[in-house]
Amino acid sequence: MLSEFDLIKHYFVQNYAEDPRFALGIGDDCALVNPAPDMQLAISSDMLVSGRHFFPDADPYQLGHKCLAVNLSDLAAMGAKPLAFTLSLSLPEANPAWLAPFSQGLFNLAQQHHCRLIGGDTTKGPLNICITIFGEVLPNSALRRDAAQVGDDIWVSGNIGDARLALAAYWKELTLSTEDHRIAATRMHTPTPRIALGIALRGIANAALDISDGLIGDLGHILERSQVGARLYVDDLPAGPILQQQAQDKRREFCLAGGDDYELCFTAPVHQRDAVIQAGLTSQTNVTRIGSIEASKGLRLIDKNHQEIQLVLRSFDHFTTE
Amino acid sequence: MLSEFDLIKHYFVQNYAEDPRFALGIGDDCALVNPAPDMQLAISSDMLVSGRHFFPDADPYQLGHKCLAVNLSDLAAMGAKPLAFTLSLSLPEANPAWLAPFSQGLFNLAQQHHCRLIGGDTTKGPLNICITIFGEVLPNSALRRDAAQVGDDIWVSGNIGDARLALAAYWKELTLSTEDHRIAATRMHTPTPRIALGIALRGIANAALDISDGLIGDLGHILERSQVGARLYVDDLPAGPILQQQAQDKRREFCLAGGDDYELCFTAPVHQRDAVIQAGLTSQTNVTRIGSIEASKGLRLIDKNHQEIQLVLRSFDHFTTE
Repeated sequence: MLSEFDLIKHYFVQNYAEDPRFALGIGDDCALVNPAPDMQLAISSDMLVSGRHFFPDADPYQLGHKCLAVNLSDLAAMGAKPLAFTLSLSLPEANPAWLAPFSQGLFNLAQQHHCRLIGGDTTKGPLNICITIFGEVLPNSALRRDAAQVGDDIWVSGNIGDARLALAAYWKELTLSTEDHRIAATRMHTPTPRIALGIALRGIANAALDISDGLIGDLGHILERSQVGARLYVDDLPAGPILQQQAQDKRREFCLAGGDDYELCFTAPVHQRDAVIQAGLTSQTNVTRIGSIEASKGLRLIDKNHQEIQLVLRSFDHFTTE
Repeated sequence: MLSEFDLIKHYFVQNYAEDPRFALGIGDDCALVNPAPDMQLAISSDMLVSGRHFFPDADPYQLGHKCLAVNLSDLAAMGAKPLAFTLSLSLPEANPAWLAPFSQGLFNLAQQHHCRLIGGDTTKGPLNICITIFGEVLPNSALRRDAAQVGDDIWVSGNIGDARLALAAYWKELTLSTEDHRIAATRMHTPTPRIALGIALRGIANAALDISDGLIGDLGHILERSQVGARLYVDDLPAGPILQQQAQDKRREFCLAGGDDYELCFTAPVHQRDAVIQAGLTSQTNVTRIGSIEASKGLRLIDKNHQEIQLVLRSFDHFTTE
């Protein structure tokens, strides 16, 4: 069997062209990073656990993609430009049939975003993947959660709910055709971090975050931290292509409370509507206006007849869902 | 039961005085860090797994100390000044009887080093603790592994081998008195990161690392990366106070190959001997000269009679020891 150090070297030490942002990469006690002059470093960490965030038999290529994608998505939600990441892996065994596709899924996405692996750790234990990611933001230009203003439009990128729909089919809550399930599952297994949109929204959006636990729960963080309320146009939510074919109650539920979409939810002043649409065009990402920020606390759900509706929904929470 | 977010807030969100190094801490998608002008950021990540790096019933206060200590030790080994860390926790349950002392052990050590928790993740799963730490170093002043020079003295801080001795007693390889086992176990459970020494050695030492897997294996990384060899004076190694009372073969074995000490091993030019001793005094850390770097590759073990000896020893490796 490969030793720990051979294992790291073989699958995870990559040769990069000389890059002045990095003084030292993998192989020492620490990596050394030189952020660009007048840049802040945005730092985020996510841990993915087998059986909790992914199925124990998850496709390793998709898993490599996803565990980096969810971290990149946090950078996108700040308007940060990806710089580097560390990877800590706990593995039951050093199995090349798993490590090869896992590292490939990881690095294919990393290279798309010029994001470099600079260190980490490997150990034996239950499968657990912990990534800490670093991105660059201009000082005072990050898209924060606490910056929503009364009167802002609320927007969401791409479409939402298909990841939850795929999970419903896995859980046999409903039945999908094989092809529909495959399309929906692609959203769940290989989410697209909205890096280009996040950067394009600098100076345009006020507040932003990425939707990991579900729109309502995540938007709730913006409302709480910005000390505002909101109304949401439930029937304007951009359901994913397969979810659009489902009944209204499922469409609403999965769009509002389904997690794992990794789309951006953001607020922007009304006078920035054209600029938001232009940011969507330049980043080749659909954007949909779904509500507005109000002074009155709480979240009001409005249907297509302009009536407020009551829905019992709960956002995903690792410790309370079982 | 507490929800995920309540859990984080209660045990891990601390109020710090305003600190210009941090633009934004816990609660957004990313933390925002402003490194000091003309500083590099040193970044390291370590993952600790239950049953692998600590006993499943490990004292949570000591565990909180240790998981941060091993990361601080990586900063010490670069001569970096601690700045901040992220914590990702996978837990079987949200148990306050574990979380309260764990967070206390963690923060007591963090505060000693003015090192701030700026983000992370919590999730349900097998107990797994992943910390990524950030420290500041002056550009071109970090103590790297690849910088040992032929003729350098080799030094080690503090004393070594007691952590391995404690493990031997747990494993019933040998018998210790209750009091001796307690003293040795303290070294294993609450290692002291040598931050002050690391900083004091800037500009004096050439190469450095911390001893986590055992002196021979870790020194081997310096030799390999610096493309040099070394001789080590086996009977000059500073055995810990309890290990000193053991037979010569155990003393040698545990000093040379025992892990979990988190002392610094470093090399420095002969003309810096007084400066190294002064660095030890100012940082209140014992330092012992234990060998020298040679051009001839490989590691030669020399006994007190100046004879080269052969010992069969193996360094700790997570994937090959079982």
